Amino acid sequence: MSASVNRQILLVEKPTGKLAKSNFKMTDGKIPEPKDGEALVRVKYISLDAANRAWMQGATYRAAVEANTVMAGGGVAEVVSSKAPGLKEGDLVFGDTGWQDYAAVNAKHLVKVPKIEPMTHLLSVYGIAGLTAYFGLLNVGKPKEGETVVVSAAAGSVGSIVGQIAKIKGCHVVGIAGGKDKCAWLVKDLGFDAAVDYKSEPVFKALKAAAPNGIDVYFDNVGGDILEACLSQMNNRGRISCCGAISAYDGAAPAAGPRGIPGLIVVKRLIMQGFIVTDFYDQREQAMADLQSWVKAGKLKVQEDVISGLENTPQALIGLLAGENRGKRMVKV
Amino acid sequence: MSASVNRQILLVEKPTGKLAKSNFKMTDGKIPEPKDGEALVRVKYISLDAANRAWMQGATYRAAVEANTVMAGGGVAEVVSSKAPGLKEGDLVFGDTGWQDYAAVNAKHLVKVPKIEPMTHLLSVYGIAGLTAYFGLLNVGKPKEGETVVVSAAAGSVGSIVGQIAKIKGCHVVGIAGGKDKCAWLVKDLGFDAAVDYKSEPVFKALKAAAPNGIDVYFDNVGGDILEACLSQMNNRGRISCCGAISAYDGAAPAAGPRGIPGLIVVKRLIMQGFIVTDFYDQREQAMADLQSWVKAGKLKVQEDVISGLENTPQALIGLLAGENRGKRMVKV
Repeated sequence: MSASVNRQILLVEKPTGKLAKSNFKMTDGKIPEPKDGEALVRVKYISLDAANRAWMQGATYRAAVEANTVMAGGGVAEVVSSKAPGLKEGDLVFGDTGWQDYAAVNAKHLVKVPKIEPMTHLLSVYGIAGLTAYFGLLNVGKPKEGETVVVSAAAGSVGSIVGQIAKIKGCHVVGIAGGKDKCAWLVKDLGFDAAVDYKSEPVFKALKAAAPNGIDVYFDNVGGDILEACLSQMNNRGRISCCGAISAYDGAAPAAGPRGIPGLIVVKRLIMQGFIVTDFYDQREQAMADLQSWVKAGKLKVQEDVISGLENTPQALIGLLAGENRGKRMVKV
Repeated sequence: MSASVNRQILLVEKPTGKLAKSNFKMTDGKIPEPKDGEALVRVKYISLDAANRAWMQGATYRAAVEANTVMAGGGVAEVVSSKAPGLKEGDLVFGDTGWQDYAAVNAKHLVKVPKIEPMTHLLSVYGIAGLTAYFGLLNVGKPKEGETVVVSAAAGSVGSIVGQIAKIKGCHVVGIAGGKDKCAWLVKDLGFDAAVDYKSEPVFKALKAAAPNGIDVYFDNVGGDILEACLSQMNNRGRISCCGAISAYDGAAPAAGPRGIPGLIVVKRLIMQGFIVTDFYDQREQAMADLQSWVKAGKLKVQEDVISGLENTPQALIGLLAGENRGKRMVKV
């Protein structure tokens, strides 16, 4: 690419059903000039997350992504020039850079990150995925040693870390994922006690076999039918950590919620709690220290799925929503 | 009635749809002989609760009520004779006596209660209704001064107390009830800030007007459409205290749960928590002391709906499920 061109991917039309490549358009923009308080950054890696799709549906914990703007997305970037105190050329930052080569971003919205190797870990285990798994499991799900933890989208960026942390904490861990290969990987490589393949077996029955003592903590990434199957197998005083609802993102809004709510919540005294990773950022240092020590000790394996080329970002997100990734998917710009 | 006959109401057939009088049959049984460890009690007042209907659907926090047995139900009763240490003739107890004149009950399942006047308060404000309101609001909902609390089935035994306690705690209180008279009573007599009549106005819109700052605590007695309407108006970090699901009790099992779960739970970081009153019985003394002081100070009004005659118990429950009561409904045997 030329150093004077800023390739950008626009969301040209909001999807009403499944996301398609036609919802996006690549265009050549100008490299922006940073204003006072801003830094001009060169994007290195773009994070792909199921939540990207939810942002297109409307306001969530952030404003909706609008049509005919650069598609939003978190990324790791290098500072090219800076008009902001505290940031200088060569610094590495994380922020919502969007799907483009260059961005001018207010320094308030950038977090300086250390230059670790591989840099990709800043988006996987030491990024939002790792912290989401850590806080959502430990601060919301609160598993105790010996309890049964079930996690959906278990082969994804968050789920694969949730299950491993639950094993570190001495729990019986069951992952729900799509496909025999992913399920085998969860058990053989990541040390899950069992895995349920929602594409080839009835979830309720398979879960009953894999979690014979019932479920104490369900880490929910998907909502829908799988949440419903887990709800009815929760033990009294179980906790459901509500992280996301992938099943509801890529299509029209769901017609109804899972059966058993609120009936089962009452009878079993369940707690369902939603969270966003930033809610717990005051405890970020401890989380980082724990994650780093587990990675170094070989207790936490980091799986990444790096796709090359900014132009491939739309297809990479579409594929992620279809569940084709294993571990953290990102694009090397 | 003759002192040698024990009138009993049997559940002769489990309802598959709406509960009807034909599901019950009155019969004359024998007055039982208490075995070792049991007391023979004469039932004074039978408590009617929406949960009675849920017990017919299957196991809840207790085993299901089976066909051709005496219908289960809590009651205040007087000990006639005792083969249990700690209980003697003339003592007043609370327990699951069932819908009958006399019962022989293991003393383990009876709680000795004080002889207060009126005795009916033992089933309303100082009984399960009052304690459910107290713990469900304060320990689960955790309202703070100035927050908005919404309660459904607000004119019922639990709801009417929930709203008043929330007012005592300095909250903005909105009740949802069926009918103009009930709604007027909530505001004029019980001091609620506003009431929504779900029978005559669209709940979502009326709630938006009555709770303009959104909902911080929703005390859910009903589930279904009203839970759905509240969910979408919850403020970030709101709490939903799941007490019951009246809308789902008197009919076939609902086809689906409310929309917005888990999506709204995630985005708004909500906590939905189910509870059963006995979960908090270790804090019962404090609760009783608070309730008594509020009643004495005139801050908490007690509304009771006492129906005479054991034979009228089935119709009294059917009417309660249709929402015809105001405050705590019970039968004077």
